[in-house]
Amino acid sequence: MSAPAPLRWDADLPAVVLLDQTRLPADEVELRCPDVPSLVAAIQALAVRGAPLLGITGGYGVALAAARGDDVPAAAHALATARPTAVNLATGVARVLRAWREGRDPLAEAHALSAEEDAASAAMAAYGLALVPAGARILTHCNTGALAVGGTGSAFAVALAAHRAGRLAHLWVGETRPLLQGSRLTAYEAGRNGIPHSVLPDSAAAALMASGRVDLILTGADRVAADGSVANKVGTYSLAVLAAHHGIPFVVVAPRTTVDLGTSDGAGIPVEQRAAHEVTHLAGAPVAPAGTAAFNPAFDVTPPELVTALVTDAGIVRPVNRAGLASVMET
Amino acid sequence: MSAPAPLRWDADLPAVVLLDQTRLPADEVELRCPDVPSLVAAIQALAVRGAPLLGITGGYGVALAAARGDDVPAAAHALATARPTAVNLATGVARVLRAWREGRDPLAEAHALSAEEDAASAAMAAYGLALVPAGARILTHCNTGALAVGGTGSAFAVALAAHRAGRLAHLWVGETRPLLQGSRLTAYEAGRNGIPHSVLPDSAAAALMASGRVDLILTGADRVAADGSVANKVGTYSLAVLAAHHGIPFVVVAPRTTVDLGTSDGAGIPVEQRAAHEVTHLAGAPVAPAGTAAFNPAFDVTPPELVTALVTDAGIVRPVNRAGLASVMET
Repeated sequence: MSAPAPLRWDADLPAVVLLDQTRLPADEVELRCPDVPSLVAAIQALAVRGAPLLGITGGYGVALAAARGDDVPAAAHALATARPTAVNLATGVARVLRAWREGRDPLAEAHALSAEEDAASAAMAAYGLALVPAGARILTHCNTGALAVGGTGSAFAVALAAHRAGRLAHLWVGETRPLLQGSRLTAYEAGRNGIPHSVLPDSAAAALMASGRVDLILTGADRVAADGSVANKVGTYSLAVLAAHHGIPFVVVAPRTTVDLGTSDGAGIPVEQRAAHEVTHLAGAPVAPAGTAAFNPAFDVTPPELVTALVTDAGIVRPVNRAGLASVMET
Repeated sequence: MSAPAPLRWDADLPAVVLLDQTRLPADEVELRCPDVPSLVAAIQALAVRGAPLLGITGGYGVALAAARGDDVPAAAHALATARPTAVNLATGVARVLRAWREGRDPLAEAHALSAEEDAASAAMAAYGLALVPAGARILTHCNTGALAVGGTGSAFAVALAAHRAGRLAHLWVGETRPLLQGSRLTAYEAGRNGIPHSVLPDSAAAALMASGRVDLILTGADRVAADGSVANKVGTYSLAVLAAHHGIPFVVVAPRTTVDLGTSDGAGIPVEQRAAHEVTHLAGAPVAPAGTAAFNPAFDVTPPELVTALVTDAGIVRPVNRAGLASVMET
């Protein structure tokens, strides 16, 4: 069975109820957000994360503000700017805000957005499956399953489809420092779905590739620029360079809601820098001397020439370039 | 000032007294090893580590067995096989065992080995300094300072010499998962020596290189094969591939005691596989679901064509190949 729902709408309170992803895999704890400030705080603490799921969350946040009778445009602004990199957050918020401005039901709009992301996940899984060879050993990074995307995810949805089709021999899960979304969340989802898997330190991926045990790399995206540059969890670019060196296909799986044609190229994508303590502390305990500085970007940017293919909910872009991306976005 | 001595001989007990590196940086705790089994356990637990320092430790272990009146050859065998990858451990043990067999004082031989490693560190620092440009921003991995090598270290000794020469702008310290020797030990030694530094997740190194903020990469080695292949802490090979992609010099610093001409190439280097719990647990707490498998090699192997230069205590090998390595070993 899959994991508990990462987000649900509680009509009675009202509230947006999150599965607190910072507590996984040890504890499955609900985090109730009865107002927009608590939801913004939850987004910033990464209790909810993943580009498409952030879009859904933002949409429900606007619906929550409307249900409470809050200042809806102000709430929308706070939600849209809670984190900078994923374009979905801003667009999900804008979509439900527009519905509210036009006198339509914002909650129905948030539900529609959520349902569309579920459908997009299924479409990505179907398209991506065509790129998975029999007996594939797939390496993935961060978390791109139901906890990040809606449906069964993006990159993870392809791996899950391959597993269900009997085509997946093993899923290698990069632990994804500093916040360990791979070990904590992807290993959890893989286990829940019966997928054979192992975690590894991110720095061991190169040795694994050199050993001939990786056939395909699948990652998600937090934002795809118009030229096909992919912003995703830090370490993704590292895997892309290593994949090219070892001749391994590097495939990005992302719904069209993650593509931002308004950002021309990778240089235009804002990359969130996060606090040093995420690197210098683990589970609250210091692992570096007090006061140690850290370089801690949440994301990195992979240029399109290192991306073998981009799997979207409207088909596969290959090669990844402006024309191919523009074409799939018109679908 | 530099860190407390990582190893000292206590003649009164007798005992080999280690600074327990698994407790750093939080606690500076001495670990007294009054017999060889306790010393072997300390080596396996990584209370003491680093290829040259393991050689010194092995040598003192043989002297300890002799001082206690133990079965010295049996003790030497246990020490030499405590960990498989660093050739120094076996050769340090063999050297002091030979002295004992020949009726010379094993303790004097261990002291001599230690003094020679100190001198080798100074020589590496001097040779390596020539490769450091003014205002250098150096990236390093794992721990290669006094806690690993003797003297002021290998790669770290070069960075320290550059700092003292006013040539080091910043030291980037890869945290070095899973055991975080970078965050725990190198950041500690950098701080003790007043070197401006930051730690980073290993997977962020690629983004840092792409941003143009790395001028030189310096690592140590656990074993160098006759063809110049370098076995070192897992993640080193990853950095070497990334360095080549970004056009950044990748320099390995290692004393001749780390070179093993008896191992022809990288395929002949045994790579220690360590337990999954090092990856799946942090500070005793699980970060992955119970029972999660892990790929956890302690080392990886970098082929010589990715190594820009090898700095030894007898000069610089560049390009790195069999002939150059054989030449420096005859010095």
